Amino acid sequence: MRRGTNLPAIGGFNQSVVLDLIRRAPTGLSRVEIAERTGLAPQTVSNASRRLIEDGLVVEAGKQITGPGKPRVILQLDPLSRYAIGVHLDPTIITYVLLDLRGNIIAHERARTPKVTTPTSVLEVITATIDALIDSAGISREKLLGIGIAAPGPIDTVRGVIVDPPLLEAWRDVPLRDYISEATGLPVILEKDVISAAVAELWTAGDEIREDFAFFYIGTGIGVGLALDGDVLRGFTGNAGEGGTLVIPSAGLPEHRRSDMLGHLATPQFLVEQAVDAGVLKTAPEEHDLSAIDDGFSELVALAEAGDAGAIAIMERAAGFIASGLVSIVNLLDVGEIVFGGPAWSRFARRYRDRIADLLSDSPDRRTHHRISIRDSSVGEDVAAVGAACLVLDAAMSPRPATLLISN
Amino acid sequence: MRRGTNLPAIGGFNQSVVLDLIRRAPTGLSRVEIAERTGLAPQTVSNASRRLIEDGLVVEAGKQITGPGKPRVILQLDPLSRYAIGVHLDPTIITYVLLDLRGNIIAHERARTPKVTTPTSVLEVITATIDALIDSAGISREKLLGIGIAAPGPIDTVRGVIVDPPLLEAWRDVPLRDYISEATGLPVILEKDVISAAVAELWTAGDEIREDFAFFYIGTGIGVGLALDGDVLRGFTGNAGEGGTLVIPSAGLPEHRRSDMLGHLATPQFLVEQAVDAGVLKTAPEEHDLSAIDDGFSELVALAEAGDAGAIAIMERAAGFIASGLVSIVNLLDVGEIVFGGPAWSRFARRYRDRIADLLSDSPDRRTHHRISIRDSSVGEDVAAVGAACLVLDAAMSPRPATLLISN
Repeated sequence: MRRGTNLPAIGGFNQSVVLDLIRRAPTGLSRVEIAERTGLAPQTVSNASRRLIEDGLVVEAGKQITGPGKPRVILQLDPLSRYAIGVHLDPTIITYVLLDLRGNIIAHERARTPKVTTPTSVLEVITATIDALIDSAGISREKLLGIGIAAPGPIDTVRGVIVDPPLLEAWRDVPLRDYISEATGLPVILEKDVISAAVAELWTAGDEIREDFAFFYIGTGIGVGLALDGDVLRGFTGNAGEGGTLVIPSAGLPEHRRSDMLGHLATPQFLVEQAVDAGVLKTAPEEHDLSAIDDGFSELVALAEAGDAGAIAIMERAAGFIASGLVSIVNLLDVGEIVFGGPAWSRFARRYRDRIADLLSDSPDRRTHHRISIRDSSVGEDVAAVGAACLVLDAAMSPRPATLLISN
Repeated sequence: MRRGTNLPAIGGFNQSVVLDLIRRAPTGLSRVEIAERTGLAPQTVSNASRRLIEDGLVVEAGKQITGPGKPRVILQLDPLSRYAIGVHLDPTIITYVLLDLRGNIIAHERARTPKVTTPTSVLEVITATIDALIDSAGISREKLLGIGIAAPGPIDTVRGVIVDPPLLEAWRDVPLRDYISEATGLPVILEKDVISAAVAELWTAGDEIREDFAFFYIGTGIGVGLALDGDVLRGFTGNAGEGGTLVIPSAGLPEHRRSDMLGHLATPQFLVEQAVDAGVLKTAPEEHDLSAIDDGFSELVALAEAGDAGAIAIMERAAGFIASGLVSIVNLLDVGEIVFGGPAWSRFARRYRDRIADLLSDSPDRRTHHRISIRDSSVGEDVAAVGAACLVLDAAMSPRPATLLISN
């Protein structure tokens, strides 16, 4: 996994190598096993383990009897020795998670994004909620490794700035990373939302999960996080994954559309607009009232599920738009799997996941013939916030050698 | 670079490590420098070097005086000790190249693809041309490492089969790899054409070239080879890079279009069709006569360059279609560079490279704001054939460890 940060790692390189191996072994490992798997000398493993135990990251957890001779002491990660916070700033909902060192969610919080007066007021809300989350979980701040923030693109990863996301009105060049870091006294990583979602899916995945997928993310906007050959694609400027500008074939587009782009045809805002135009929804939410739009979308989905023909037509058409966008992605990138997620997805999923899968599979425009696996995110609706926190864990715990020498 | 092959490597792992280092140093390296850079023991370097010299891959080329003490003998790659052949089977033109071990083109050959009666007759032509190329270059077959073949997708990389490329009529499940291997007695690698093109661009690139680009390939069809973080993207089934199904926004599309897809709007065949419909070209080539279509495209370009308003309008519109497709790619993948190439590109490039660059740069739909570098392929029109041969060189010369132990 590429890293989006220069957060300091825990300990030196050998210590990280040992920690990384221990955290990937749920039942723990003995020092002998660690030496065998890393190629490190027994004395090096012993020193690194001692420092990890002193720091509280690793505990001795029982003994292993493997034959004649001295039983081996099992080393395990202490998942409650350190924590990371993840925040997902979506234009409609802000999600907060607190993860332990193994990536388990210890606490979470979700709230409608305040109608923006100034970005600063939103940043104050975020900081206050982070403080409340830490307090309610009853953990000491010294155990916090840092905060990861997932935000809509475009972002400036070098300066830690939100540039000008189309769905966050009035957010222009907001120095989010430094603001939150100064307000909380913790290191902060800023990452684009769909990239964070792909990170979460990879990081929390068991070994059985494919390391090659497109994460189709649908929230206030549409994005496509990509994991290719086991690495999350961040792109040249850290802004990969903009899926909303994919163009949809013109046959079947609604008449009063704003454009041919997926982000102007299949997102909650525009589906609600289409429903209002068609008389399916009685009241039009105000253009920038994202909470009202979100409620309208829930109502549209409920109508479709209750059998309303007009609502069904709009949702069916949206499923077709999404499938069309996926055809372009599958042809271009030859991914083996599509993972769906994001705040609006579960409302689509109940009736339209299988429909989208069939449309994609049967499309005459699809160029390869292999079966594409389709599934919901294994992380759930908090996925982008979880991914942001995973970036903090990853930065702290993954070995980052300057050079890897090849031993003779 | 990921490998699409199980071709045997030259020598064992240490030998490959030493060879790899020597070939990357144009002026050569001493054994001491090799030991320093690899971390291998002096005796191991000495043994590996001796075997490489015995095999003729490396030569002693002068001495280096670095201070007091014994001068160091410089080891250099002998570029003429081994060769690789690359073949690019495009539906319109078949290109053949013979590369030396450093990737220089020693010989090449280009011929119109025979109008297909049976795929077998084309395979016979390819085999005969490969034999003639070897003979005319006057090299012994023992020095040939193998043949790389770049072909239109979809391909089955496991079985080495061309499945059913839309532009090669009558080619269905053709076992290209095994046929050519049996006919020539040489190992054969089969790779998709646009992936080969990206390989060539990466492999022959100097250090100054970005390892992150989309290779926009335009020949009989349109493809997009991708290099992301220094690796060529092959995809789950080796079929990444299908760019012809990208959809173009509908405003400005010609009226009698077949579809909204880039491959049905901006390829030579469809531009010639548009020119015939508009009366710009007087005679319509037969639908499957790709040579006549290619000639028609040359005529259309010549008319545009001579100032014919109808021809200019068609070519300008095509430039717009290409820029629109690139907007989707740049937004989705955040690549920093677009490289253009393929058999039809040079005819576009003279007048429309800069136009496409401007349209891409100024598009209101572009989501990131960084400058995107735009350039022609540094390899030229033989790029896919060169890439296929590079895959053979890479398979033979790059170290492929089963496991990399971390030394203490």
